[in-house]
Amino acid sequence: MLNWDHIFATRSSRMRASEIRELLKLLDRPDIISFAGGIPDPALFPDEEFKAAYADIFGGEQGKAALQYSVSEGYKPLREWLQCEMAKIGVPCSADNIFITSGSQQALDYLGKLFLSPRDTALVNWPTYLGALQAFNAYEPNYDQLTLGNRTPESYRTAAEKLGGAVKFAYLSADFANPTGETVDRAGRERLLKLAEELDIAIIEDAAYQSLRYDGEPVPPILALEIAEKGSIEETRTIYCGSFSKTLAPGLRVGFVVAATPVIRKLVLMKQAADLHSSSINQIAIAHVAERHFDAQVAKIRKAYSARRNAMLAALERYMPAGTVWTRPEGGMFIWVTLPEGIDGAELLARSVETEKVAFVPGQAFFADRSGANTLRLSFSCANEQMIDEGIKRLGRLVGGVGAMAAA
Amino acid sequence: MLNWDHIFATRSSRMRASEIRELLKLLDRPDIISFAGGIPDPALFPDEEFKAAYADIFGGEQGKAALQYSVSEGYKPLREWLQCEMAKIGVPCSADNIFITSGSQQALDYLGKLFLSPRDTALVNWPTYLGALQAFNAYEPNYDQLTLGNRTPESYRTAAEKLGGAVKFAYLSADFANPTGETVDRAGRERLLKLAEELDIAIIEDAAYQSLRYDGEPVPPILALEIAEKGSIEETRTIYCGSFSKTLAPGLRVGFVVAATPVIRKLVLMKQAADLHSSSINQIAIAHVAERHFDAQVAKIRKAYSARRNAMLAALERYMPAGTVWTRPEGGMFIWVTLPEGIDGAELLARSVETEKVAFVPGQAFFADRSGANTLRLSFSCANEQMIDEGIKRLGRLVGGVGAMAAA
Repeated sequence: MLNWDHIFATRSSRMRASEIRELLKLLDRPDIISFAGGIPDPALFPDEEFKAAYADIFGGEQGKAALQYSVSEGYKPLREWLQCEMAKIGVPCSADNIFITSGSQQALDYLGKLFLSPRDTALVNWPTYLGALQAFNAYEPNYDQLTLGNRTPESYRTAAEKLGGAVKFAYLSADFANPTGETVDRAGRERLLKLAEELDIAIIEDAAYQSLRYDGEPVPPILALEIAEKGSIEETRTIYCGSFSKTLAPGLRVGFVVAATPVIRKLVLMKQAADLHSSSINQIAIAHVAERHFDAQVAKIRKAYSARRNAMLAALERYMPAGTVWTRPEGGMFIWVTLPEGIDGAELLARSVETEKVAFVPGQAFFADRSGANTLRLSFSCANEQMIDEGIKRLGRLVGGVGAMAAA
Repeated sequence: MLNWDHIFATRSSRMRASEIRELLKLLDRPDIISFAGGIPDPALFPDEEFKAAYADIFGGEQGKAALQYSVSEGYKPLREWLQCEMAKIGVPCSADNIFITSGSQQALDYLGKLFLSPRDTALVNWPTYLGALQAFNAYEPNYDQLTLGNRTPESYRTAAEKLGGAVKFAYLSADFANPTGETVDRAGRERLLKLAEELDIAIIEDAAYQSLRYDGEPVPPILALEIAEKGSIEETRTIYCGSFSKTLAPGLRVGFVVAATPVIRKLVLMKQAADLHSSSINQIAIAHVAERHFDAQVAKIRKAYSARRNAMLAALERYMPAGTVWTRPEGGMFIWVTLPEGIDGAELLARSVETEKVAFVPGQAFFADRSGANTLRLSFSCANEQMIDEGIKRLGRLVGGVGAMAAA
């Protein structure tokens, strides 16, 4: 067989299979209670609504356009619908500030491509969304830990220069983040805006879970706070990435970016060169369902996921041994568990699958510096309340046993 | 407004709007006869078949899966259908040698990303597909002219090294290429394989138009010739990029790559990081229509486009002044015209739109070195035979007049 390694570009060495992902593929078995997934529950998909959307498309005048090439910036009526939605959450903008992507994962890839030269630095949380690290890795950056409050702008700048590049952006999910479930409060968002201003960098606000709030007061998006301060989206440095994957359905691959037009214009050119445009028919179908059913659909899934979150928090309280702590998310799909020091999440998973038939994601993969061995991510989106109680009971038993052994 | 330029990566400076594309946007007017497009005729889309496909998906057990996340390598039944199709054209392989992309444009972007470090060299034809240059540009390569016969491997290698990188691949569309309509004969394909072997580079075979042959004998795909020589796809260096955009419909954004597994494995990881997977529902719909209607659909469009090609060749013969030459493609969508020296394609377009109401694409954009000012690309895919005759008549009149002025 050919030796491809010297033909591949240097960046390809950072494209590696995730061990965890490979392992979890094997765990898609009916006898396992899985808190690993992090995907929406298909039972909640608005499939009747999508069925009607596709039938309408082919029944009407849009059938041909749905099958034809379309513009790189995205389907205008969908961008106009998003414009109205953004206005409701404090982001007044025009349809020209909105760009349709093939899921918000594509937005992260494109933003990495737009900003990162090799050796530039991206600021990310420790832990952060694994998919963001994977998307950015292709552009060969370094990572530094985004912490709000205890570091000077100068310390970020110096660290980046030492590594041969510049700080280009801070990436974060401000609401019910994957993997922690945590939300950055208003003061934290304002500190981030100040930091970005001082460093003269972009902010990538990943809003994939923002619609999934179950209680507590909504915090304005970072982009909304910046517009309020500066008067116009054209003056802002925050790039807002949204998705229909968690609200309507991921299988159509439709997401979006909202930002100042110089950024949108570059993204449109990039998309023209990279895949021409997102699926015409799916953009029309998403617009069709969003216009008619978005609020009802979001209300439906909020109710279901909220009950599951409650069940998981109650079960953790009931079954987890002392020394284990976890987050109490106000939305999203995830709870983040920190085990007593010395317990390794990956080892725990191996035992858990063998003896307790419970799966989750060890937390280490979410850390750019590979710390966090004693953490794990639990998703409550795809399990019913009985399964959640049973699964956490088993997991608590295992953690208790392993903890006792570690202490002995 | 923010100064974004120093925050953007260096590669972004090569992402520029195509003047021609911007101009042509303005020409989408009913009073213009357009040979510019290069897109399939929507009147030929199998829309009833797609309507049935989407209805079946939601009527059966696939409704939920169609809306859910799916695997990065692509929908298995579609890959298996492609496996059978590839065997028919001399490419025996397994489904694991096949990777589904969001259109073949995405394959070009991913292959640029996989192979090109900044300053590496890509070998391309002068002229070549503009979209390939745009896709590769993001990875900051140099280009050298792929000519089969009159240059030594050493001369390519030396030129690339002088520019600070290495030759990584040769890209070409071997059948009815966009923009020339020309086909590389078997001897040419064998010379290319030999060159690639000597340079130890990959070959990217863009087969977007390969199914659209109207007459003449099919030439085996480069990948088929290489497998015949080496015994197995695993030993090959040719990466075959196919598409459903020209045969079924472009709006679903479904294309594919066929190659040795080390390449496929990297592409799958790249896709996982870049957009997770291509639309689940569209892959199922394409498989549904391809399994039932592919051959009939291809026969239908071949018949229609063949008649239009004949009409355009006849009209060129009838109306073009002496000194103008053009290709005689055996398939595809394009005829390539070379005007007498001194006539500029871009200037001709401006006049043509003003006085004759006929549009086409000036050829210069297709040259990596911006030569070819006296060339133009005509597409016959979207005009009926009367319009073709009328449009070429007007164009011939204009070229004759401009030529006479130039000679005077």
